[in-house]
Amino acid sequence: MSPALTSVGHQRGFIVPIGGAEDRVGEAQILRRVLSLCGKHASIAIIPTASKKEDTGRNYQMLFESLGAHSAHVLKFGEREDCEDPLALQILADCDGVFITGGNQLRLSTTLGGTSVARLLRRRNADGMLIAGTSAGAAIIPEHMIAFGEEGPSPRAGMVALAPGLGLSNKIMIDQHFRQRDRLGRLLTAVALNPFALALGIDEDTACFIGPDNVLEVVGSGSVTVIDPSQVRGNSLAEQERTEAITLTGLRLHVLTAHAGFDLETRTPISA
Amino acid sequence: MSPALTSVGHQRGFIVPIGGAEDRVGEAQILRRVLSLCGKHASIAIIPTASKKEDTGRNYQMLFESLGAHSAHVLKFGEREDCEDPLALQILADCDGVFITGGNQLRLSTTLGGTSVARLLRRRNADGMLIAGTSAGAAIIPEHMIAFGEEGPSPRAGMVALAPGLGLSNKIMIDQHFRQRDRLGRLLTAVALNPFALALGIDEDTACFIGPDNVLEVVGSGSVTVIDPSQVRGNSLAEQERTEAITLTGLRLHVLTAHAGFDLETRTPISA
Repeated sequence: MSPALTSVGHQRGFIVPIGGAEDRVGEAQILRRVLSLCGKHASIAIIPTASKKEDTGRNYQMLFESLGAHSAHVLKFGEREDCEDPLALQILADCDGVFITGGNQLRLSTTLGGTSVARLLRRRNADGMLIAGTSAGAAIIPEHMIAFGEEGPSPRAGMVALAPGLGLSNKIMIDQHFRQRDRLGRLLTAVALNPFALALGIDEDTACFIGPDNVLEVVGSGSVTVIDPSQVRGNSLAEQERTEAITLTGLRLHVLTAHAGFDLETRTPISA
Repeated sequence: MSPALTSVGHQRGFIVPIGGAEDRVGEAQILRRVLSLCGKHASIAIIPTASKKEDTGRNYQMLFESLGAHSAHVLKFGEREDCEDPLALQILADCDGVFITGGNQLRLSTTLGGTSVARLLRRRNADGMLIAGTSAGAAIIPEHMIAFGEEGPSPRAGMVALAPGLGLSNKIMIDQHFRQRDRLGRLLTAVALNPFALALGIDEDTACFIGPDNVLEVVGSGSVTVIDPSQVRGNSLAEQERTEAITLTGLRLHVLTAHAGFDLETRTPISA
């Protein structure tokens, strides 16, 4: 599920991974920004597949409506066969932006993966539509998704499990609740498996707004930890048992806060 | 590391995953076929990075020379910095085909991943050069690589570990030593994580020759098990604990032997 090719005359839409627990009762600046990027009379489709709670979709629907969305539709996609429903696909084809809720990212990959919904999401993002996701909804965005793992700051060979994600980008790997759940170790392990993509560790109430130009801007109250493996030299992962600590040298690390940017193509930070 | 874009006027080269333990002392039909697809005066580059044995590269070098290769070069790539060596990169840029040996596929992804070697291999395959790999060398070929896992015929939620591979194709996932090491369960688990790619379980002394048209032909003494998840409905992986058995319904399964083919685009078998 690599990124779909962008049609001539189109630019890829924004990709907005959010670290979970974004503010919804105060200024809600992340969700407001999502909405404003979707346009003035935005119609939002909400995919609550990751969540087991009945009211997750409905809560976001009311929230987006209260923030000024013209309309907000909840697309349940509880089973794989729901992902071929013509009415739901039509809503996805017509909306101005998609918001994927939190929960368990494996529910997203196992339910949407290989269906018409996954293909349409990739197609529409390639042709300009914004896709945002929080927590599990952020995890599913890249080609290589962190499915689950263990806590702790230093990497160990078997501490992270990957699965194929939605594939909106192969330039990044994403982890969420980064500071709150002590996830540096598992993100470093994910990088060590094949040190090619940039890794983004996104705190709660914090988002990366990744534009069509592959420049990322941080919005929210926390930080985004960027790990660049371009210069990695030592990497002992292949030689270790699953529970053993690994050597990993030559990483570059950047910590970004609100308004700071990062160019994913040149791998350089942009000052606020 | 998604597939590089093919230049105008070029076709992608053959991709040849081999299930390991291919015949080398008898007719060696798989290796002969690899060589013949590289052309009459073929120059082969051998990457023995996966192997810990000192003589793996040298043995394949002698073998390819005895089978009629014009030249065969061993490119050691033992450390990540070796993957920026101008001389080795020049050999890779000039050769007619690349052969990746067996061993541990994590040694390949951790050593080559994100380096100039990985980029050049993708570039050259996109522009027409054949890349073959046996065992770990087959595992590294796709975007989503099976890194390790457990034996047994039925899938359990945590029985397989993925890592990003070389990314020559995102249409397939690959497992090797398929019959000999009882790997149906782990391949099904890999499919269940996100049921979008075709899964190929390749027996020992058996290979898939995947042409530029994405038609696969089986060569060798064993079989290739093809799992097509297009019609998967039930999939309980997200709800299970790691050691629990999972429900997975609606798979299509094909078992192919020598001379049989399979169209990866239409997902249909082609009779021998």
